Amino acid sequence: MDPDMDSWLVKVTLTPPSLADNSADTDRLLRALKRQIGCDQIQISLELMRRLPEKLRQWQYAVQALCFKTGGQWHLIDLFDATAPPIVAGLAVDLGTSRVVVRLMDMDSQKNLGETTFDNPQTVIGPDILTRIHYADTNDGLTKLQKLIVDGINNAIVELCQTAEISRSQIHLVVVAGNTAMTHLLLGLEPRWMIREPYIPVVNQPGLLVARELGVEAASGARLMVFPNVGSYFGGDLIAGILYAGLHQQAEMAILVDVGTNAEVVLGNQDWLIACAGAAGPALEGGVTRMGMMAGPGVIDQVSIDTQSGRYDLHTIDGKPPVGICGSGLIDLAAQLHLNGMIDLRGKLVAEKCGNRFVRQKEINGLLVVSEEESGKGDALVITQVDIDSLIRSKAAMYTILETIVLHVGLTFDMIETFGVAGTFGSFINPESAITIGMLPDLPRERFKVLGNSSLEGAARLLTTPSLADEIGPLRDNLTYLELNVNQEFMNRFSAAKFLPHTDISRFPTVSVALSSRAEGS
Amino acid sequence: MDPDMDSWLVKVTLTPPSLADNSADTDRLLRALKRQIGCDQIQISLELMRRLPEKLRQWQYAVQALCFKTGGQWHLIDLFDATAPPIVAGLAVDLGTSRVVVRLMDMDSQKNLGETTFDNPQTVIGPDILTRIHYADTNDGLTKLQKLIVDGINNAIVELCQTAEISRSQIHLVVVAGNTAMTHLLLGLEPRWMIREPYIPVVNQPGLLVARELGVEAASGARLMVFPNVGSYFGGDLIAGILYAGLHQQAEMAILVDVGTNAEVVLGNQDWLIACAGAAGPALEGGVTRMGMMAGPGVIDQVSIDTQSGRYDLHTIDGKPPVGICGSGLIDLAAQLHLNGMIDLRGKLVAEKCGNRFVRQKEINGLLVVSEEESGKGDALVITQVDIDSLIRSKAAMYTILETIVLHVGLTFDMIETFGVAGTFGSFINPESAITIGMLPDLPRERFKVLGNSSLEGAARLLTTPSLADEIGPLRDNLTYLELNVNQEFMNRFSAAKFLPHTDISRFPTVSVALSSRAEGS
Repeated sequence: MDPDMDSWLVKVTLTPPSLADNSADTDRLLRALKRQIGCDQIQISLELMRRLPEKLRQWQYAVQALCFKTGGQWHLIDLFDATAPPIVAGLAVDLGTSRVVVRLMDMDSQKNLGETTFDNPQTVIGPDILTRIHYADTNDGLTKLQKLIVDGINNAIVELCQTAEISRSQIHLVVVAGNTAMTHLLLGLEPRWMIREPYIPVVNQPGLLVARELGVEAASGARLMVFPNVGSYFGGDLIAGILYAGLHQQAEMAILVDVGTNAEVVLGNQDWLIACAGAAGPALEGGVTRMGMMAGPGVIDQVSIDTQSGRYDLHTIDGKPPVGICGSGLIDLAAQLHLNGMIDLRGKLVAEKCGNRFVRQKEINGLLVVSEEESGKGDALVITQVDIDSLIRSKAAMYTILETIVLHVGLTFDMIETFGVAGTFGSFINPESAITIGMLPDLPRERFKVLGNSSLEGAARLLTTPSLADEIGPLRDNLTYLELNVNQEFMNRFSAAKFLPHTDISRFPTVSVALSSRAEGS
Repeated sequence: MDPDMDSWLVKVTLTPPSLADNSADTDRLLRALKRQIGCDQIQISLELMRRLPEKLRQWQYAVQALCFKTGGQWHLIDLFDATAPPIVAGLAVDLGTSRVVVRLMDMDSQKNLGETTFDNPQTVIGPDILTRIHYADTNDGLTKLQKLIVDGINNAIVELCQTAEISRSQIHLVVVAGNTAMTHLLLGLEPRWMIREPYIPVVNQPGLLVARELGVEAASGARLMVFPNVGSYFGGDLIAGILYAGLHQQAEMAILVDVGTNAEVVLGNQDWLIACAGAAGPALEGGVTRMGMMAGPGVIDQVSIDTQSGRYDLHTIDGKPPVGICGSGLIDLAAQLHLNGMIDLRGKLVAEKCGNRFVRQKEINGLLVVSEEESGKGDALVITQVDIDSLIRSKAAMYTILETIVLHVGLTFDMIETFGVAGTFGSFINPESAITIGMLPDLPRERFKVLGNSSLEGAARLLTTPSLADEIGPLRDNLTYLELNVNQEFMNRFSAAKFLPHTDISRFPTVSVALSSRAEGS
């Protein structure tokens, strides 16, 4: 590939045909493109060939070609008038189990043309992957699941195109980053062997597909690319995340952690990458807490408690009246409760410290976060002991997985130079809070990088950055997946991590200091 | 490619998945195939991926894979049970302007499962290419032409499958050799620029297409490959012919001549190939002569005239009563008439020599070939002076083209070691007769090889011989197309060749001897 290639849109002016050079239209075009791009082969569809003769002559052989490379193979997707090129849009999709985020990109100017998010419509079949996989095994189940997600994407396309004032026929490429099960359901690939030992997906690297074949309504010749997966439990979403975070390009040791239902962790640098995933629990995705929810307007994403006044300072998305709390808000809340002694080191609510916010409903302790009057949804927002216990398990799982992978390669946390924190709610997460509850290790704060939705960012960046295409294959191939061995040692580590911040407080010196100073101050 | 690969069907046994090797089904299969075939990349369709998991497990990972390579790219077309493989059939198509020949092949045993031939249904639009190309320019014209030929092929498929007792879903690959215009009409590609200077086709090398996308009814994932062309006037049919004749593989100098409406000539050897095509006239394809027709039951394909008795010995196809005459029969007839002095050296009928066979209708001289009583169609079969004149022009064009190309590269006819004669009627052509009328040069007879339908044979052979796939590209690329410059010199040569056998009788010493001896004998 030409290293200077800064867009998938390639301007090329062909030598017009003559008696001396009577190459066919298609071959003439591909020859010029190959020379310009620096490649041996480019694939073209019959449909595009059919349109070629008229267009080449109409545009006087000056064309803008939308090319794309995946799995080592170049494709010519479509052609435009070089002198008056239209907007050529691409769609980046973060295909989450619970939530789907879609971004429309101008593939030439690299501008973000809009973004939207929606609940994965497959949730009507089941909130979790397992239920859907079992459902896919029933009659027409897979077809139905496939249609649900495709319809969701098509709706998002309509919405985004309306806002951006373009036609959906201007979307020529869709790049999807999702976990392995979700991408299988999108492609209509049977997921049944993914959940049975030895956990085999249908495909790791699906190559470039035709969007229309999947029912995705974009340009007639639009293609759809799915980030390759490493296995059933390590999906293309994380490959996209690594691509964005750049672990595979840097000399220093780094960790990327993507927090969702699964805690997915990648450790390594340009020389090697090791990855590990484990259930972190749904607490962080708003799946369990009664007041918990995905990030959205009115959702509490930042919390601080004034130690002196006991006042709760809640930040909600878009400044709307609070309607629930998302992962980052929950982590903030737990950290603040812990620092103020309102939960003890096992995460149990301390009634006398909580004062009149302490509530008890149906024999379960709780804490009033937002009163009925201040609430945006009519009811008071209460976090229960059950919610907190769930969060503690999640954060303990996360820490244990981090500890396990770092130990596995013979490192210690302090040897990690950068620590990327990603996730759909990741743009809001406060590393300070995550460290306070012992979810992330107590490292110098400047080593933490809040990456936001790294899967979406990786997908969006691929839409505008040809050089990334050659990084994906080696990245995937160099990645070793470490199967979590949930043995006694792991369980011991997990138990020790269920304390706030940890049984071994010496691991969290800055938290220890903060706790002491707050205790003194109160 | 593995040089020992003797079939496109590759047996491969996969290592079943395990926790230690959890590659996805598709990637596992492709990895094994790549190793076995010796290639870097194989493309697979989404449809096949979808069927993969069940089939791999059902067949316990022992599969027979139908692979194919074209344009340097490998494709996995379909998969079968290795322990009980079904018949996997391929279809070779010689897509002629007037006539289409289709052969069904067993791609494993390499057996011919049947052959059929039909008039190109596009003839209803126009008998010649030009009329069809103009028609393609009208509203829906191209679609209609495309449908006509596809329907014709589909009918042939039904017929062949019935005879061979297989299902059309067992046809997985269709290989088409046709001239550039015909293949464009098959693929639904606009041919309009092929007939306008500088005569540009839409595509030279169309790659591998999906048969179903064209409407060809075979296996759901069946592919269709079209032999690449060199230009608007040098089609894939001749590339297939060269592949069959083997010019590109041999050290000695050779000529391949394919006689149809166009006289297509290739000259060269393993080092270089030069090709030339020119209108030879329709006389040889049964398009003009009132009694002329394509080879078929009852068609006269061999003629000899006993000098002593004046008896006509006519051979008809399938021994049926005569209904017409095909190209090879016409050449035989003209040679015999010439040897017996019934036509003079300008090809004019000599009334006194023709005796009671001489007829004159509507002021046109003619010769009764078959009387009304002996005819298979009720009417007498008469060859007119107009028919003979047309043949003379055709043979003169052919000879002139041969002379021109040989002179162009500085050779003489006697330096040509082999002289392949192909054409739909080529299996029957008698080089002796063709030399007698001065259509082919007077070379030692053992240098002539009657190749039959070399385009069909080339296509059929590709269905069963993987090693040929790598020969097509270089063959095409090494071929120089010599644009016929119809200048005064050419016209002079053409005029000289319009005599029987030639103005310069010294060029045809054996014919000279034969004429003398017959003249003496009579």
